[in-house]
Amino acid sequence: MKQRNFNIKAPEKRIVPFLIEKIDNLTKPKGSLGRLEEMAVQIGTIQQTLSPSLQNPYHVIFGGDHGITAEGVSYSPAEVTPQMVFNFMEGGAGINFLARQHNIKMKVVDSGINYDFNGLDRLIDMKVRKGTRNYMNEKAITLDEFNLCIERGAQIVKDCHQECCNVISFGEMGIGNTSSSSIWMSLLTGIPLDQCVGAGSGFDSEGVKRKYTILKQAMDNYKGDGSIVDILCHFGGYEMIMAIGGMLQAAELNMVILIDGFIMTNCILAASKLYPEVLKYCIFGHQGDESGHKYVLEYLNAKPLLNFGMRLGEGTGALCAYPLIDSAVRMINEMSTFKHAKVTKYFS
Amino acid sequence: MKQRNFNIKAPEKRIVPFLIEKIDNLTKPKGSLGRLEEMAVQIGTIQQTLSPSLQNPYHVIFGGDHGITAEGVSYSPAEVTPQMVFNFMEGGAGINFLARQHNIKMKVVDSGINYDFNGLDRLIDMKVRKGTRNYMNEKAITLDEFNLCIERGAQIVKDCHQECCNVISFGEMGIGNTSSSSIWMSLLTGIPLDQCVGAGSGFDSEGVKRKYTILKQAMDNYKGDGSIVDILCHFGGYEMIMAIGGMLQAAELNMVILIDGFIMTNCILAASKLYPEVLKYCIFGHQGDESGHKYVLEYLNAKPLLNFGMRLGEGTGALCAYPLIDSAVRMINEMSTFKHAKVTKYFS
Repeated sequence: MKQRNFNIKAPEKRIVPFLIEKIDNLTKPKGSLGRLEEMAVQIGTIQQTLSPSLQNPYHVIFGGDHGITAEGVSYSPAEVTPQMVFNFMEGGAGINFLARQHNIKMKVVDSGINYDFNGLDRLIDMKVRKGTRNYMNEKAITLDEFNLCIERGAQIVKDCHQECCNVISFGEMGIGNTSSSSIWMSLLTGIPLDQCVGAGSGFDSEGVKRKYTILKQAMDNYKGDGSIVDILCHFGGYEMIMAIGGMLQAAELNMVILIDGFIMTNCILAASKLYPEVLKYCIFGHQGDESGHKYVLEYLNAKPLLNFGMRLGEGTGALCAYPLIDSAVRMINEMSTFKHAKVTKYFS
Repeated sequence: MKQRNFNIKAPEKRIVPFLIEKIDNLTKPKGSLGRLEEMAVQIGTIQQTLSPSLQNPYHVIFGGDHGITAEGVSYSPAEVTPQMVFNFMEGGAGINFLARQHNIKMKVVDSGINYDFNGLDRLIDMKVRKGTRNYMNEKAITLDEFNLCIERGAQIVKDCHQECCNVISFGEMGIGNTSSSSIWMSLLTGIPLDQCVGAGSGFDSEGVKRKYTILKQAMDNYKGDGSIVDILCHFGGYEMIMAIGGMLQAAELNMVILIDGFIMTNCILAASKLYPEVLKYCIFGHQGDESGHKYVLEYLNAKPLLNFGMRLGEGTGALCAYPLIDSAVRMINEMSTFKHAKVTKYFS
């Protein structure tokens, strides 16, 4: 299967001074809405308009299993992956109440879960394989599977875009995927592995040490060519590669991309190694409690909106932050100007 | 006029372990929703229920003018106070788009603005006087006026409570009120005045120095008895004392109080010096950009939800954070348990 190319350019910046001028004429001290003003400028630039809008937001969750769980890298048993998919479909998971609260539609995708769902209603079947191979001994994902994942992730986003969606977030479900994320992070940034490995769904410090030792061994066993794509294939998860495909497609379509926690941040890190300009379309929802997250955010020069000690995954940190982005857009559209409201403008 | 007493007790804590048990049985790794879990416990404790709710939220803005502005302590001209009241009533201010976004009702109160509104529709007329006296030379507010402000602020909250409101926030409009806040803060906490004075609506560093010099002179001129109430009267604003009355009444009625930025934080600081348990009812919305705010938050051991570089006032930081509190309540009410969702519970 051929590798998909994306046409991702930085948004044209000539509109920026006009956005700033509009914001500076709203009835408030200059700069006094801080991050809301920054986001309004960013979204206006992405959309190339002085009146940006958020339309038909979607959240896509990709689910996949990981061969490496056989080595004991996760506190949770692998059976939790399909169990949580049923929970998503029933509306009882963390991501569900947030999606309902903010009126965000959800798509749940089986990217590669080790379970037969037998055509479960509303679950999107894009299963590549029943879980990745165990990267302790072999490449987790083949190049053909990688290309298939990128293509399928992109297709999901195209479908959302055709429904007039212009803002999208991604989440994941996959026992073992903090491990893949930690190794990607270490190899793609050069940050030592011990700063990239954390508690995942609940390890104590002894558990984190064991996890580190296993992942260090897997990294030592790696004999690939060291290219970005080879690293992503060797240590990846199907759900994570599909998220990368989705992010790249969203940037190509000039959509606003809302980034969740540790795993999705490592997916956008990987995406940015392939297409650096993808970062211009991103807003980072939160800094999570998984210990490596702050380092990868610093590496990306990202300023997350929230720091709430969250580490659930699913995209919960992104969706929790959604109303803040909505506030930014409402600000630039709804506030009166000094002139219209007849308020003395007390700065030049 | 007699001083009003409030009956404010800390919420009964016996329910806390039951709230934690409920949250730990929801389908997520233990503790993985961080601050949302903490807020759910706090609100459940205030409301003494395992199924807390936020009902009919209100935001009250108190407006007042300050005699000290004659000394040049503010970047903005005093005429902006009444102009902004018209803007609130027209729906064009920063606070308005946030209130609309989150479906929060607003009450706007004239506590002591130097302008004749002539019965402006929907503006609540509780005007004590056309602005406070200039505290460079005399007490800004008399004891009778203080008691009247406390009573009127409490009355507004009682009215909201009678409409089944159980969560409330407060904001302010009053050119010159960062000055009152800075002096209150310094005298009530012992933090040196220079750490309490900031740019307000837009001073540069020279302007901040001038403002400091004026406020230091006013503090040096103070010859009162040093009691809490005397300090609040001498340097206060009518809108600020009404907010204190509102906060105390809200706590007495077991309401959740959402705290805004620098000025409202100094009002809850003052309220807590009169009734320390009022703090148990508070959630701090944001850390603002006014330079003293972080120090008073630290003094109160408060962890604000947002840090967005905002410094608009009006209550914008509180309302911006409202959906995060709503998320906490939805979490504890809407998420499935491990048992109900048939998900393996992987911790004890």
